[in-house]
Amino acid sequence: MGIGNGGPAYGVGYEETTASSLVRIDIEGNVLHPGFARQTYARGKVNKAGFIVHSAVHRARPDIHVALHTHDENAIAVSCSPQGLLPVGQANYSCGDVTYHDYAGVAVLPAERETLVQDLGPKSMCMFLRNHGTLVCGESIGDCMIRCYYLHKACEQQVKAATLAAAQEGVMILPPTEVVELARAQTEAFDTDGEGEASKASDVFLKQWIFHLRQLVESDPKFMA
Amino acid sequence: MGIGNGGPAYGVGYEETTASSLVRIDIEGNVLHPGFARQTYARGKVNKAGFIVHSAVHRARPDIHVALHTHDENAIAVSCSPQGLLPVGQANYSCGDVTYHDYAGVAVLPAERETLVQDLGPKSMCMFLRNHGTLVCGESIGDCMIRCYYLHKACEQQVKAATLAAAQEGVMILPPTEVVELARAQTEAFDTDGEGEASKASDVFLKQWIFHLRQLVESDPKFMA
Amino acid sequence: MGIGNGGPAYGVGYEETTASSLVRIDIEGNVLHPGFARQTYARGKVNKAGFIVHSAVHRARPDIHVALHTHDENAIAVSCSPQGLLPVGQANYSCGDVTYHDYAGVAVLPAERETLVQDLGPKSMCMFLRNHGTLVCGESIGDCMIRCYYLHKACEQQVKAATLAAAQEGVMILPPTEVVELARAQTEAFDTDGEGEASKASDVFLKQWIFHLRQLVESDPKFMA
Amino acid sequence: MGIGNGGPAYGVGYEETTASSLVRIDIEGNVLHPGFARQTYARGKVNKAGFIVHSAVHRARPDIHVALHTHDENAIAVSCSPQGLLPVGQANYSCGDVTYHDYAGVAVLPAERETLVQDLGPKSMCMFLRNHGTLVCGESIGDCMIRCYYLHKACEQQVKAATLAAAQEGVMILPPTEVVELARAQTEAFDTDGEGEASKASDVFLKQWIFHLRQLVESDPKFMA
Repeated sequence: MGIGNGGPAYGVGYEETTASSLVRIDIEGNVLHPGFARQTYARGKVNKAGFIVHSAVHRARPDIHVALHTHDENAIAVSCSPQGLLPVGQANYSCGDVTYHDYAGVAVLPAERETLVQDLGPKSMCMFLRNHGTLVCGESIGDCMIRCYYLHKACEQQVKAATLAAAQEGVMILPPTEVVELARAQTEAFDTDGEGEASKASDVFLKQWIFHLRQLVESDPKFMA
Repeated sequence: MGIGNGGPAYGVGYEETTASSLVRIDIEGNVLHPGFARQTYARGKVNKAGFIVHSAVHRARPDIHVALHTHDENAIAVSCSPQGLLPVGQANYSCGDVTYHDYAGVAVLPAERETLVQDLGPKSMCMFLRNHGTLVCGESIGDCMIRCYYLHKACEQQVKAATLAAAQEGVMILPPTEVVELARAQTEAFDTDGEGEASKASDVFLKQWIFHLRQLVESDPKFMA
Repeated sequence: MGIGNGGPAYGVGYEETTASSLVRIDIEGNVLHPGFARQTYARGKVNKAGFIVHSAVHRARPDIHVALHTHDENAIAVSCSPQGLLPVGQANYSCGDVTYHDYAGVAVLPAERETLVQDLGPKSMCMFLRNHGTLVCGESIGDCMIRCYYLHKACEQQVKAATLAAAQEGVMILPPTEVVELARAQTEAFDTDGEGEASKASDVFLKQWIFHLRQLVESDPKFMA
Repeated sequence: MGIGNGGPAYGVGYEETTASSLVRIDIEGNVLHPGFARQTYARGKVNKAGFIVHSAVHRARPDIHVALHTHDENAIAVSCSPQGLLPVGQANYSCGDVTYHDYAGVAVLPAERETLVQDLGPKSMCMFLRNHGTLVCGESIGDCMIRCYYLHKACEQQVKAATLAAAQEGVMILPPTEVVELARAQTEAFDTDGEGEASKASDVFLKQWIFHLRQLVESDPKFMA
C-alpha cells in the first residue's frame, strides 16, 4: 500500500513495517525523508514498479489519497476472464465502477503511467490489472482497505458461483439490471441505521475500518512505532 | 444474528459484541434498551436492512426465536444455481426444506418483508437469498447455529462434488428419492444413542451446541460480559 | 474413530475426548465400562449409527483393529463420481484397493451391516461411502490415521487436477497401468532407508504416526488423561 | 529439502529437524556424519527415493546447491495437464524455464537419475514431476525457497483462472508472447529500487528470504540448534 506522500521501504517485510519506517517521497520520487527502518540498508529505498504505479494514480486523481495493490488469486482469475466482474453477490456493489488494464510487463517503464491512468478513468476506485492483480483506491486508508475486502470477496463469490453454475446447468442466476442499479445506488448512499440520514460508501467503510484498527491496536500495536 | 427481541449494536464488531452490548428492540423497531456497548456512539443503533429481514421473520413465524444471516461463498454459489441445493451428502438432511428468495436490492424497503415471508413459507428453517447469502432460523441459538453449520457444509460438498463430476463425466451420483426421504425422516427424529427414544433434530442440535458453548466459555469467555 | 473394543462417548466433543472418557463395549454393543467422561450424562452412551458401522467391520475383518469415519469434502466429491478414485498422484498408492458403498440412509439399521461388509470385501482398508464420506481402516491407530491422511490428499489432488484438466483441454495425464502397478507394489513394501529391508506400508505408517504422537504429547497432552 | 552435502534424517519430522540433526552424505550416499538427531534410531538414515533424486541433480548441475521437492496440490494439477504451466500472472515469470518429467514409480531405481537429469536440462530450476509434484532448485536456500513460493503461487493462479475462464466463456486472457518475453527478461534482471543497477533474480530472492529468516529466528529459533 502507498499513501499519498510515501510508502514502505524496500527490503522491509510487510509484517515488519511500522509507521516510522515508511519512506516519505514527493510525486517525482525524490526522497523527502528516508524513514527509520531498523534494516538500515532499506532506508530511503522504494520499489520502482510500485512508484510508477502509485505516482501515476496520485498525479491524475487528487480524490485518491491511498492506493493498494494486491495479487489475490480470485481477483487474478476475474482479471483473466473477458466478462470481468459480474454482480454475483452484494460485495460487488461496494466496488463501484471497476476498470481493467492490460498487462504490459513489470510496471517499471514511465510510459505505462499514461495507459494506466487512461484505463482507470475519472471515477473508478477499483481496477483489475489483467494477468497481474488489482489496484484499489480510497479517500482514506480505511475506505481503501474495506473496499479491497469487498472486491476480493466479490471475486471469490464469482469464482465459486460461476464454477458451480457451469458444472450443473451452465446458467448462473444474476439480478436483473434495474435491481443491480438500485443496489449500487443504495450502496453509494447508505442509510445504515435507518434514521433517514444517508452516508457515502467511503464514510461507511471508514467506520468499519475503525473496528479493525481497534482490533489491531489491541492484538499487535507494534505497527504504530 | 438476531434473537427474537434484539440484536447487535451497529458499529460494534462481531468479535467485540458481548451480552450486555446487545440492543433490545420490539417488533416495530422501537428501542426498549440501548445496551451498554463500550462504543457509546453505537448504543441503541441497529442495522436497518437487518431489522427489516429479522422483524419480518419473527412477525410471521412464532416458532422461530433466532435468525442468522450469512454471506458464505459456497452458499452464494448454490443460491445462484437454478437447481438449488442437491442431496449430495448427509449434511443436506439436517437442513429440512430449504426455500429461495430472489435478490431485490439491499433489504431496507418494508415491502420486502411480504415477499420474504411468502418465500420462507410456514415450515422452512433455511432460506437461500439469491445473489446474497442465507437466512437460517432456529428454535434456539444452538439449534440455529448447528443447522447453519450443516447448511454451509452441504453447500461446500455440493460445489466440490458437482465440479468434479462435471470435470470427469458430467454425471454426479445422488441417492434415489426414497433413500433421500428415509434419511430426512431419520434426521428429523434421531434415535442417537440407540435406546429407542427419538429426539427432534432441533433438540439434537441444541445438545451439540452445548459442547461448542463449553469450548467458548473455556477459551474466550468475554462474550458473556 | 472407534478402536476394536470401544469408542468416544456420545455427547463429548472430539476435542474433549480423553483416554479415560472412552466407552468400552463388546461386539454386541453391551457396555463393559461406561468410561469417566466429565460430562456424566454421556457416560456409557455411544452413537448408534457409529456402532452399526464399526461393529460390522470388526466382526467381519479381524485384521482391522481400528476404523475411522470422515466427512471430508474432497472425498465426498470422489464418492459421487462414477469413476471413483484415480491415480492422480503418489498419495493414491498409499490407499491400496479402495471400495465403494452406496448410500442407504443414516446407518442405524442392522441390515446395512451385511451390504457394508460385502462392499468392503476381504482386503480393502479404504472404502468410499457414497454421498456420505469415507471409512478408513487400520491394523493400528497410527496405520489408520496416516492412511486416512493419504486418502484425503489423494482426493484433494484428484479434485484439483481433474478440474484444471477439464478447464484446459479435457485430458488429464495419468501414469500407464504398469507404472501404477509398480508404484503400488513399491508402496506396499517400502525399502525406505535403502538398506535392502522392505517394510509393510502399515509399519511405515506407524513410524510416521509416532512423530505426530510426539507433537501431540508436547503441544496438548490432555488426551492422555 | 536437500542441500548439496546432505539432508534431513529419515524418521525425524520436518518440524523437529534442526541444523545438527541433518545427515552429511557424499554424492555416492556414503554417510560422512550421521548427525545428532534426538531420535537416535534416525541418525545416519536418509530417504532412498530422496537420495536418488537429489544426488542425480547435484551430480549433473553444479550450479544447483539446493533442491526442494513438494507435493503441492495446485502444482500436481498443472503437472497433469498437457498444456503445463501458463503465464497467467506475474508469479510465473519468477520460475524461469520450467521442465517436465513423467512419473515412473517411486524414485528408488538408479536408472531414473538419467531421465530425470535429461528432462531437467542444463538451465531449468523448476521441474514438474508429473502425477507427483515439483522439484525446485536454487543457488542458495533462499533462492530455492522464494522460487518455490512463486511456482506454487503460479500454479494456484492458473487453477483458479482456467477454471473460471472455462466456466464463463472458455477463453482465458493471456499476455501476448512479446510481453511474456519482456516480463521474463525484466524478472531475470531486476532493477528493484530504480537506481539503475540490475540484480539477478536469484539475488533478489535471497534478499527476500532474509526477511523470512528474521521472522523465523524471532518466532521459533529451535531450527538453529
